[in-house]
Amino acid sequence: MRPSQRAATDLRPVRITRRYTRHAEGSVLIEMGDTKVLCTASIEETVPPFLKGRGEGWITAEYGMLPRSTHTRSRREAAQGKQSGRTQEIQRLIGRSLRAVVDLKALGERQITLDCDVLQADGGTRCASITGAFVALHDAISTLLADGRLSVNPIRDHVAAVSVGLYQGVAVLDLDYPEDSGCDTDMNVVMTGRGGLVEIQGTAEGEPFSRAQLDLLTDLAQSGISRLIELQKAALAA
Amino acid sequence: MRPSQRAATDLRPVRITRRYTRHAEGSVLIEMGDTKVLCTASIEETVPPFLKGRGEGWITAEYGMLPRSTHTRSRREAAQGKQSGRTQEIQRLIGRSLRAVVDLKALGERQITLDCDVLQADGGTRCASITGAFVALHDAISTLLADGRLSVNPIRDHVAAVSVGLYQGVAVLDLDYPEDSGCDTDMNVVMTGRGGLVEIQGTAEGEPFSRAQLDLLTDLAQSGISRLIELQKAALAA
Amino acid sequence: MRPSQRAATDLRPVRITRRYTRHAEGSVLIEMGDTKVLCTASIEETVPPFLKGRGEGWITAEYGMLPRSTHTRSRREAAQGKQSGRTQEIQRLIGRSLRAVVDLKALGERQITLDCDVLQADGGTRCASITGAFVALHDAISTLLADGRLSVNPIRDHVAAVSVGLYQGVAVLDLDYPEDSGCDTDMNVVMTGRGGLVEIQGTAEGEPFSRAQLDLLTDLAQSGISRLIELQKAALAA
Amino acid sequence: MRPSQRAATDLRPVRITRRYTRHAEGSVLIEMGDTKVLCTASIEETVPPFLKGRGEGWITAEYGMLPRSTHTRSRREAAQGKQSGRTQEIQRLIGRSLRAVVDLKALGERQITLDCDVLQADGGTRCASITGAFVALHDAISTLLADGRLSVNPIRDHVAAVSVGLYQGVAVLDLDYPEDSGCDTDMNVVMTGRGGLVEIQGTAEGEPFSRAQLDLLTDLAQSGISRLIELQKAALAA
Amino acid sequence: MRPSQRAATDLRPVRITRRYTRHAEGSVLIEMGDTKVLCTASIEETVPPFLKGRGEGWITAEYGMLPRSTHTRSRREAAQGKQSGRTQEIQRLIGRSLRAVVDLKALGERQITLDCDVLQADGGTRCASITGAFVALHDAISTLLADGRLSVNPIRDHVAAVSVGLYQGVAVLDLDYPEDSGCDTDMNVVMTGRGGLVEIQGTAEGEPFSRAQLDLLTDLAQSGISRLIELQKAALAA
Amino acid sequence: MRPSQRAATDLRPVRITRRYTRHAEGSVLIEMGDTKVLCTASIEETVPPFLKGRGEGWITAEYGMLPRSTHTRSRREAAQGKQSGRTQEIQRLIGRSLRAVVDLKALGERQITLDCDVLQADGGTRCASITGAFVALHDAISTLLADGRLSVNPIRDHVAAVSVGLYQGVAVLDLDYPEDSGCDTDMNVVMTGRGGLVEIQGTAEGEPFSRAQLDLLTDLAQSGISRLIELQKAALAA
Repeated sequence: MRPSQRAATDLRPVRITRRYTRHAEGSVLIEMGDTKVLCTASIEETVPPFLKGRGEGWITAEYGMLPRSTHTRSRREAAQGKQSGRTQEIQRLIGRSLRAVVDLKALGERQITLDCDVLQADGGTRCASITGAFVALHDAISTLLADGRLSVNPIRDHVAAVSVGLYQGVAVLDLDYPEDSGCDTDMNVVMTGRGGLVEIQGTAEGEPFSRAQLDLLTDLAQSGISRLIELQKAALAA
Repeated sequence: MRPSQRAATDLRPVRITRRYTRHAEGSVLIEMGDTKVLCTASIEETVPPFLKGRGEGWITAEYGMLPRSTHTRSRREAAQGKQSGRTQEIQRLIGRSLRAVVDLKALGERQITLDCDVLQADGGTRCASITGAFVALHDAISTLLADGRLSVNPIRDHVAAVSVGLYQGVAVLDLDYPEDSGCDTDMNVVMTGRGGLVEIQGTAEGEPFSRAQLDLLTDLAQSGISRLIELQKAALAA
Repeated sequence: MRPSQRAATDLRPVRITRRYTRHAEGSVLIEMGDTKVLCTASIEETVPPFLKGRGEGWITAEYGMLPRSTHTRSRREAAQGKQSGRTQEIQRLIGRSLRAVVDLKALGERQITLDCDVLQADGGTRCASITGAFVALHDAISTLLADGRLSVNPIRDHVAAVSVGLYQGVAVLDLDYPEDSGCDTDMNVVMTGRGGLVEIQGTAEGEPFSRAQLDLLTDLAQSGISRLIELQKAALAA
Repeated sequence: MRPSQRAATDLRPVRITRRYTRHAEGSVLIEMGDTKVLCTASIEETVPPFLKGRGEGWITAEYGMLPRSTHTRSRREAAQGKQSGRTQEIQRLIGRSLRAVVDLKALGERQITLDCDVLQADGGTRCASITGAFVALHDAISTLLADGRLSVNPIRDHVAAVSVGLYQGVAVLDLDYPEDSGCDTDMNVVMTGRGGLVEIQGTAEGEPFSRAQLDLLTDLAQSGISRLIELQKAALAA
Repeated sequence: MRPSQRAATDLRPVRITRRYTRHAEGSVLIEMGDTKVLCTASIEETVPPFLKGRGEGWITAEYGMLPRSTHTRSRREAAQGKQSGRTQEIQRLIGRSLRAVVDLKALGERQITLDCDVLQADGGTRCASITGAFVALHDAISTLLADGRLSVNPIRDHVAAVSVGLYQGVAVLDLDYPEDSGCDTDMNVVMTGRGGLVEIQGTAEGEPFSRAQLDLLTDLAQSGISRLIELQKAALAA
Repeated sequence: MRPSQRAATDLRPVRITRRYTRHAEGSVLIEMGDTKVLCTASIEETVPPFLKGRGEGWITAEYGMLPRSTHTRSRREAAQGKQSGRTQEIQRLIGRSLRAVVDLKALGERQITLDCDVLQADGGTRCASITGAFVALHDAISTLLADGRLSVNPIRDHVAAVSVGLYQGVAVLDLDYPEDSGCDTDMNVVMTGRGGLVEIQGTAEGEPFSRAQLDLLTDLAQSGISRLIELQKAALAA
C-alpha cells in the first residue's frame, strides 16, 4: 500500500495554471499533489556566444527551490554563493528535454529561458518542472507567432516527464516524497507526445534492478506521460 | 494623476493569505496590487555562533526575487554566485524591522528565519516583505506557544512598512513600479502598531527634499501603516 | 553626559587634509575625532556599460575598512572573497549622495570613483566618507576644469553627512563608537549646502522613536551639516 | 561503418594498470582506446558530518579533466573557481555507482574518495572512470583487510560501466569521441557482476528513441559490461 | 643616472612612524620615498587549526593596496572577490620573513597578524612592508611583555628587506617605480640583523643575469639592509 | 647521508617522455625520481586583452597537483573554488621562466599555455615543471615552424630549473620530499643554456644562510642545470 493510498498506476492530482504571473511571456504553475512549481518562459532576442551568427536559437533552463519549499529549511543557494550539483543536474535535464521537441533553426536567433522555481516540494519536482515548462514554453512561442516574430511554429511535439520507482518491491507511478526517500529504484522518464523516449534516468538506491523491472517501470512511465500530455493539451486549449 | 488612477492617499488592494505553503511554520502570501511576495517563517532550535549560550533568540531574514518576477528577466543570484548589494540591504532591513518588535530573550535560544521571495514585482517589495513576514512570524510563534515550547509570547507589537514618495511634486502612498521609477523622492517607513518609528529611509532620486516634504511623507506613511496593521490583524483573526 | 564629555550639539574636532596621497586626482584625509578616512577620487574616461553612448557621466563609490582600523581585528574582505552587506550598503549610499549634487550630463561620458578607506574607526565612518569624498570629488573635477576637459562645473551644490542619535534619551550629534554601540536610535542624514535632504536613514536599535524625536534629530543633523559644509569650504579655499 | 572501423559490438582495447602512482591506497590507470583516466582511492579515517557517529562508512568521488586532455584546451576549473555542472553530474554518478556494491556498514566509519582524473579524452570518460575506480577501490579495501582494519570485505559485487548509442541508426558499443559527438542517442549503463542494473542514463541528442531501441542498447551494454568485469577480474588477479 | 638623481648606493629617505593608528597593538607607517605602507600588528589569543594544542605560536601577514595607491586605479580585491597571485605571493613572503626571527615556541599559543596596507605606492612595497612590519611586531610583543603575558622576548633578531636591481646595466639600491618598471633584473633580499640571509628572490625581467651580477646585487642589498636595521633600532629607541 | 643514499651532487634519475598524450601541440612527461609532472603546451591564436593589437605573443602557465599525487590526499582546488597562494606563485614562476628565453615579438600575436599537472609528487615539482615545460614548448613551436605559421624560431635559449638546499648542514642537489621537508634552506634556481640566471629564490626555513652558503648552493644548482639541459637536448634529438 502506498503511503498516499494511491493505486500503483495513479498519478497525483495534477493542476496546470497558465498566466500565473504577469510579466513572463509564459507563466505556469504546475501542481502534482503537494508539489508546486512555478515555470516561467522568458524570451531574449539574443543567443549565447557559442551560437552567435549561426541563425539558430537556444532553449535553456534554470531551477531553484525556495528555501522553505522543503520539510526543513534548505540553505538559499544565492546566499551560499553557488548552485548545488543536484540543481545543475536538474536544470541541464530540463533544458535538454525541451530542446528535444523544438526546431532550434526555426526558432531563429533568440533564446528562451525556462525558470522553474519550486514553491512547495513533495517529490518529483524535476519531472513537474519539465511538464510545466513545456506549457510555459508553448505560451511564449505563441506570443512570438502572434506578434509575427515567428511565422512557423518551431515546436515539433509535446514533451512531459514522470518519475516511477520500485517501492517495497512494487512498481509505482509518480512518487511523492515519502515514496521517493524510501524506494529501492527511482527512475525519471521524459517522453514526447508521439511516445518517443527523450531521457531515461534510472538509479538503484539500494538493490540493483533487473531488465524485467526496467521494462515494467518504463511501461508505467509511458502510461503516466500519456495522461500528462493530455492534461497539457487540455490546459493549452483552455 | 497617478498612473494607477489611485488617490494620493490610497493603498493598492492588499491581500494576505496565510498557510500558502504547507511545510513552513508560517507561510504568507502578501499581495499589494501586482506585487506578490511569499513570506515563510522557519524555526530552528539553534542560534548563530555569536549568540550561543546567551539564552537569547534571533530573527533573521533572506530576500530574493524570482528571475522573471520583473518586467525583463533578471539574472538568478544563485547562478551569479552572489547576492547583490540591493538584496543584502533589503534582507538586513527586514530582519532589523522584525527584531524591533520581538523580545529576543523571551524567544529563547532559537532562530526564526523569514524568507521573503518575490513571485511578482510591481514596486514596494521590501515593504510588502516586512508586512507579510510579520504575519508569518506571528504564525510561527503561535506554533511555539501551541506546542509548549514557549509559554509567553515574545511579540511585543505589530510592525508593518509602506513606501511613500514625491511623484510629480505630490506626496503619494504605496508607490507601484511606474511611480517608483519616475519619482523624485522615495521613502520607506517601518512603524509599529503603537505608532513608533522603527526605520525611516528617504532618498532623493532627483531634487533634494525639504523638511516640510519629509513631514508630509511621514504623515502619509503613518496613515498607510495604520491601515496595513489593521489588515494584519484581520488576517490573523481569520 | 556623553562619554566624550562633548555637549549634545558638538561635533568632534574635524580636520580635512587635501592632497594626502599623490596619485589620485583628489585625495582627502578626513578626521572626525578618532575616525580617519582616506577618500580618493579617480577619473576614468569611460562609463559603465549601462551608460555607454548616452553622453552622461557616472559617480560611484567603494568603501573598505583596514582590518585593524577597528578595536579588534576584522577579517579582510579581499581574503574572505566578498564584501559584506554592510560594506555594500555604505558604498551605495556614498555614491547616491554624491550623484545628488552633480549634473551627470555636464560631467560628460566619464566616471569618477570615490574610494573611501577607513584607516581608523571610531563611529560615523559612512558620514565622514561622504563629507570627505565630496572634497576629493571637488578636487578631481577641478583638474578636469583646469586641463580643459570640462568647461562648466558639473557640481551643483555641496553635500555632507552626519550621524545623530538618541543616547540615554538625549538627542546627540556626531556619535562616536561608544555612543553608536550604546544608543537607542541612530540616524544618518545627508544634506546639501542649500539645506535640502538627500538621504535620511533612521533606525531604532532598541525602542521605536517618535515623530517628535525624528524632528529633533533632523534639526540637530541640519545644524551639524551646516558646520561641516563650512569646513569643506574652508578646506577648499585653503 | 564506425569511424574507428570497429564492429558495432566491439569494445575499444582496454588496459587496466594497477599501482600507477605510489602514494594512493589504490591507483589505477584505465585506458579504453585513447581515453586514459587515472583513478586513485584515498582512505580517510573519518566520515562527512551527516554520517558522524552512525557507524557507517562513505564512498565518494571527484572527477576532473586536465585542461589539455581534450582536442582544444578547456579552461582549468580550479582557475575558473568552480566545477561545471557536467563535472558535478559525473562525480555524483561515479560515487553512487560504487556505493551500490559496497556494504557501507561493513566498511566502518571511514571514507574512501575516488579521484578520477582524465589524462586524455576520447569519449566515454565517465564510464571508464567507474570501471577503473572500482579496481582502485578494490585495492584500497585490500589494504584495509591486509592491515587488519577490516576483517570482512565490504565489497559485495563488481561494478562497471559502458556507453552505448545509436550512431547512424545502428546500436554501437563503447562510443569514442567522433561517435559520441555525432550520435543520435547516447546511453550510459552501470551494471554489477551479477547483471543487476545500477544506473541507466539515456539521452536523445537528436530524434527520440523507441522502446525497441532502448532494449537493443541495454542488451549491448550488458554484453560490454560483462567483458569489462572479466577484465577487472583479470587485472585484480595479476 | 637614476631617474631620482640618487647615487646607485642610496636608499630613499626613510621614515618610520610608530603608533600611527590607535587600536592595533603595533601600528607603524613606513615611508620609503613616496612609498607609504601602514603596518599593524594584531594579537589574537588563538592559533590556526594546524597548530592547536602544540604550545606554539604563529606569525602571519596580509597585504593589500588601496585602489588608488597606484598611478592608475587598480580594482579593489574585495570587490573582485579574490586576492591576486601577486598579493598572495607577497603576504606569504612577509609572513615567512618575520617568522624567521621569532621563536614561535617562546611566543606561546597565540597568533600575531601583520596587516600591511599600501597607502601610496612608488616601488618596493613588499620590502617596505617587511621592514615596517618588524617594528609593528616588536611593539606588539612589547605589550605582551609589559602586561606579563610573555616573560621572555621571542624575537631573536631584527629583519629587514630591500630591493636591488640592474638599471641600465648598473646595480642600484632601493628601486622606485620608474626604475622597477624599467629594470632588467629585480631582486628582493631579506636579511637579519646579524647579516644572515632569510630570503633572496631575483628575477631577470629581460636578459638573464650573471653570477658576478648576483654577487654585486647581494652586496648592495646587504649594505642597504644594515642601514634599514639601524633605522628600525632608532625608531624603536624613540 | 641523504635519505635517498645519493651523493650531494647527484640528480635523481631523470626521464623525459615526449608525446605523452596526443591532443596537445607539446606533451611531455618529466620524471625526476618519483616526481612525475605532465607538461602540455597549447597554442591559441589569440592573446590576452592587455596585448591585443601589439603584434606580440604571450607564454603563460598553469599548475595543479592531482589530489592524491601527495602522501595524504590534498583537497581538489576546483572543488574548493580557488587556487592556493602556492599554486599561483608556482604558475607565475613557470610562466616568467619560459618567457625569459622566448622572443615574444617573434612569436607573433598568439599565446602558448603550459599546463603542468603533477601526477606524483616527491619534491621539486616546480623545477621539474619548468624543465619539462620547456621541452613541451619546444615541441609546440616546432609545429608552428613546420606548418609555416612561424618562419623564425622565437626560442633563444634553453631554460631549466633545479632545487638545492642545505640538508643537515650540507649543500645538496635536487631535493626530494624527505629532504625538502627537513632542510634548513631551500633554493630554486632557473638558468639558461648559456648559464645566465633567470630566477633565484632562496628561503631559510630555519636558520638564516650565509653568503658563502649562497655561493655554494648557486654553484651546485648551476652544475645540475647544465646536466638537465643536456637531457633536454637529448630528448629533443630523439
